[in-house]
This record gives sequence, structure tokens and C-alpha cells, in this order.
Amino acid sequence: MSHRPRIQHCPACGHPVTYRIPPEDNRERATCTGCGTIHYENPLNVVGTVPAWEDQVLLCRRNIEPRYGLWTLPAGFMELDETTADGAARETDEEAGARFEMLGLFAVLNVVRVGQVHLFYRARLLDTTFHPGPETIEARLFHEHEVPWDQLAFRTVRETLLRYFEDRRQGQFGLHCADIS
Amino acid sequence: MSHRPRIQHCPACGHPVTYRIPPEDNRERATCTGCGTIHYENPLNVVGTVPAWEDQVLLCRRNIEPRYGLWTLPAGFMELDETTADGAARETDEEAGARFEMLGLFAVLNVVRVGQVHLFYRARLLDTTFHPGPETIEARLFHEHEVPWDQLAFRTVRETLLRYFEDRRQGQFGLHCADIS
Repeated sequence: MSHRPRIQHCPACGHPVTYRIPPEDNRERATCTGCGTIHYENPLNVVGTVPAWEDQVLLCRRNIEPRYGLWTLPAGFMELDETTADGAARETDEEAGARFEMLGLFAVLNVVRVGQVHLFYRARLLDTTFHPGPETIEARLFHEHEVPWDQLAFRTVRETLLRYFEDRRQGQFGLHCADIS
Repeated sequence: MSHRPRIQHCPACGHPVTYRIPPEDNRERATCTGCGTIHYENPLNVVGTVPAWEDQVLLCRRNIEPRYGLWTLPAGFMELDETTADGAARETDEEAGARFEMLGLFAVLNVVRVGQVHLFYRARLLDTTFHPGPETIEARLFHEHEVPWDQLAFRTVRETLLRYFEDRRQGQFGLHCADIS
């Protein structure tokens, strides 16, 4: 989930770019020294789920960098040609190989430092058999008191899980927006 | 609010790219024929507000393409180094020159056809004096029955306004998620 590198060459024609503020703009943009095309760089969405079975939550142990070996909710970069919910479902299928029903949007977390917005949906697991893909060492269910809080891969996973268990105790799930420093 | 063009040349080294499916992936990616770097293309976020003064909503008449001359809620592409709410506030300042207080997230609308997610926040106007920027011909308040429904710039603006006025009638604002075909 690392940030996109800055542009060195024009994706349209291949000439070097220079960073300057275009007319009627107020930010430096990659501007082609050949064809003049201006290239914009914007935040990316990471989409995932909180897959639940009764009072347990499914976590996946990462088989890839970054954060190899640490635990995460199933999540990854949103792709073109899918909705945020489609992407969250796709990642849950790819990383956990779980059968589930998608529920509502639960968390929208801004991670400005890396130029990302993380969107987590709740999901209801339909059974407890998982077939994790190659990005996952192991997928298993955790009760709240079993969650490996010091072995979580991402701050957004921690913040989402904390809010999830809190809402579960209250008996009502809300939408949670937060900024992760 | 058009979609980003496909990559022709490597943003890292300038060599031509070819679209192929990388190992352990399942989608075609722009892959450099020179340095081998894989470049990912992902959806963009458009962030904006529903600025309200009592039972009226502020709309801006576009002074730019696309949809020159049509009416929109203040909104634009989210930038790096800002949160979704920061970006929505910035666009409201730039396009309407309004004084306002940001409220909660109101709509998350997927527009898969153009690879965008539109996020609208509610905002409470602090006065009715607007100083629209160069992207706006005119900024003014509309009661529901005055909204120029056939002169709105974007489908997401229409869907957001419909839900806003409906929630206002009900006396409670929720979070609305929808997919725009």
C-alpha cells in the first residue's frame, strides 16, 4: 500500500517533465517539456471489509510486503471498472477466499501522509471455511480479546476494528470517518 | 471531470509501455518495455459539499468545460496532501467563495463508467454573501422548487440533491451510497 512515485517522464509522449504551477492553477504539476501535457497526481482508494461471523472477525496474515507476517482486514487498491463495494468484495474473495454477504459502508479513513483513503464495508460471513489466496499466509476468526493488536499491519485496520467492536457492543453500526496521522 | 488518458510512455524512464498482465496479477497493466516498471491506474475521488442556508442550497453555474453554463454543487478532484473533507471545503471556497461550517459525510457515489468516486459532505453556510472564483459564472441559493433540475451539470449532483431534500423533509440526514450508471 505504498504511495505512487512522482512522474519523471510524460506518460503521453515520453519527454521529461518539469514540476511547475500551470496558469490558473495553484499547485505544481508534472508538465511535459515536449508536448506540454499536464499530468495530475491524486489520492488512491484502498477498499476492504470487516468480515464477521457472530462475534468474531476474520483477519488475514499477510504473505506479501509491506508488513509481511502481520494481520490485516482484507483490503487493497480499488481498480478501474469496479465500485468501492465491488473492490472490497473482490479483495475479500482474493485474500480470504471467504463466502460472505456485503453490508453497509462502515469506515472512511483518510491517510493523508500516503495519499490514500481507506473505505471499509461490513460483511457477514456465510460459513467458516476460508480458502486464502497467495497474498495470505493464514485466514482465521478472532474474538475481540484474541485480536493481535500489536501485530496488525496497518493503523487503519486497528482504527476500524476498534470502532467495529465498540459499535457491536452498542448494538448499532454507524459510519465512522477519521483522519489517520 | 473527465477520465485520465491511458499511459503511452513510462512515467519513470520515458520508454513506450505495453499493456500486459504481470505475473501474479489478473489485469492488464502499463508495463515499461525499457525498465519493466508496472504502472497502475486507479479511480479518482471527486469531493464536494451541499452548502445549505436554512431550506436553500447553494449551486454554482460552471464557467468551465465540461458542462459550461450548467449548475453544480461545488466539487472537484481530491488532491494529494488533503483529506476528503479538506478537499470538499477547498472546492467550496474556490468555486463559491462561501463562508461555511463543514458537517458530516452525506453521499458516496460510484461512477464506474468514468472511474470516479464522488463524496459529498453537508455544509452549513454562515452567511449569504458569495465570492465565486474564475471557474464559476454565478453562485446562488435555490429552494427545492427552484432547482434547475434539467440544467444540472452532473448526474451525481442530481442524485445528491434529491437525497438531500428528501432527508431534509424527514428531518434527519443519513449517509447515502449509490452507483451511478
